[in-house]
Amino acid sequence: MKIAIGIEYHGAHFQGWQSQPNGAGVQDALERAIALVAGEQVRLHAAGRTDSGVHALMQVAHFETSIVRPLNAWVRGSNAHLPPWVRVLWASEVADDFHARFSARARSYQYVLYNHPVAPASQHGRVGWYHRPLAVAAMQQAMQTLLGEHDFSAFRASECQASSPVRTLSQAALKAQGRYLIFHFQANAFLQHQIRNMVGALVYVGQGKLDVSAFAELLQQRDRRLAPPTFMPDGLYFTGVQYEAAWQLPPCSADWDAFNTD
Amino acid sequence: MKIAIGIEYHGAHFQGWQSQPNGAGVQDALERAIALVAGEQVRLHAAGRTDSGVHALMQVAHFETSIVRPLNAWVRGSNAHLPPWVRVLWASEVADDFHARFSARARSYQYVLYNHPVAPASQHGRVGWYHRPLAVAAMQQAMQTLLGEHDFSAFRASECQASSPVRTLSQAALKAQGRYLIFHFQANAFLQHQIRNMVGALVYVGQGKLDVSAFAELLQQRDRRLAPPTFMPDGLYFTGVQYEAAWQLPPCSADWDAFNTD
Repeated sequence: MKIAIGIEYHGAHFQGWQSQPNGAGVQDALERAIALVAGEQVRLHAAGRTDSGVHALMQVAHFETSIVRPLNAWVRGSNAHLPPWVRVLWASEVADDFHARFSARARSYQYVLYNHPVAPASQHGRVGWYHRPLAVAAMQQAMQTLLGEHDFSAFRASECQASSPVRTLSQAALKAQGRYLIFHFQANAFLQHQIRNMVGALVYVGQGKLDVSAFAELLQQRDRRLAPPTFMPDGLYFTGVQYEAAWQLPPCSADWDAFNTD
Repeated sequence: MKIAIGIEYHGAHFQGWQSQPNGAGVQDALERAIALVAGEQVRLHAAGRTDSGVHALMQVAHFETSIVRPLNAWVRGSNAHLPPWVRVLWASEVADDFHARFSARARSYQYVLYNHPVAPASQHGRVGWYHRPLAVAAMQQAMQTLLGEHDFSAFRASECQASSPVRTLSQAALKAQGRYLIFHFQANAFLQHQIRNMVGALVYVGQGKLDVSAFAELLQQRDRRLAPPTFMPDGLYFTGVQYEAAWQLPPCSADWDAFNTD
């Protein structure tokens, strides 16, 4: 039987999603906890691999098991064996041909940037930070050039193992909300560090170090070495996965606002 | 010369505001950092002493020094020597007869309660948690009985050292905001654990374990042993201090919403 789970975690406590030899991946913590519920080893497959320090308000993963448990036991039982900064939000039985990664049509991320003269204290580790005012309208304009299908080599980590640098960005929005800038991105999939690299370049636009046409050119040049540095992981949240309705999954997206004040 | 400072901190990293023999108080971290800027020891006096695990979005303190520095040096210099979960927000020269504690007319706190079946993961340590639905209207009604001058012995920690259990509560409000309940309290001053004890009793009201008149009776009985247990510190934020305008201080209050999405 195949079980899909929705997962929330605070990335600062893990070395990324992926299983690590030292057991410090989110995947390791979850596989250990689920194994205690199942009484057998399980292997998790996730919709997206988040880097070290990156959070998830909604990650989706699946595992196969021969063990029959009430769905609620996978949720509560796993949570009883997990550290408090990772929680299973729901569990759902899925068809045998579902795959958390390969069935995903799109992924959503939010980047939360604290734009304030003094660095965040109570929000340390949960938001990116830039200390001077940023030209939001120019950043919003630059983001429009990212929409659609592009070769995103300019924003791809050198160690990225994807077979192709081409991705289709279906959403790129930025809203200013008090002392925060909140970026929304949705794409069929993302390259390694793609969002943090795009945010780094957009902050350059906001500072006036890059104008909108230079930003557009950067994308077209497809050369990572020409682009501004990667922005810190602290503000990046994996916020959802889009699957066909036919899979009949529980809600697979969340929103940073909802985890804060809505 | 006397300098007042506004301070933000994440309480999970400290053993409360007050100086500790092991140096783990917020006060210790700040006194060390300011001493490095001043080149001499300083002694901080704060508007309110927060317990271990309790946060401040706006704490106010003052110190005396013979050293003259630009105000910005007290902010940036101190921040350069502080761990990232505590920040000096502003510094302001104040009159010699100002005292952060004794000049304060009122203190404000917010308690943020995550009311959701699954415990908080990305917000772990930053919010209180209760897993079942709560009757918010009854809680709001019960809170009204707290307003005004009362002997708050029912909600006072046994180790509280205040000379009198009488306090005047000028604000007691509760709003439901999505999956959060946000409590606002303002009083001339608070007893030790008073807010966490009041929140604990209000959650009993929300569960239906106490009705509004039983809650009011609890207050009148003035017996801590009859009241529900202290709620966890995680959701408690010191959000501001009220001083006379004549002191000409920078803004001395903050709001949890503002530190999240406004």
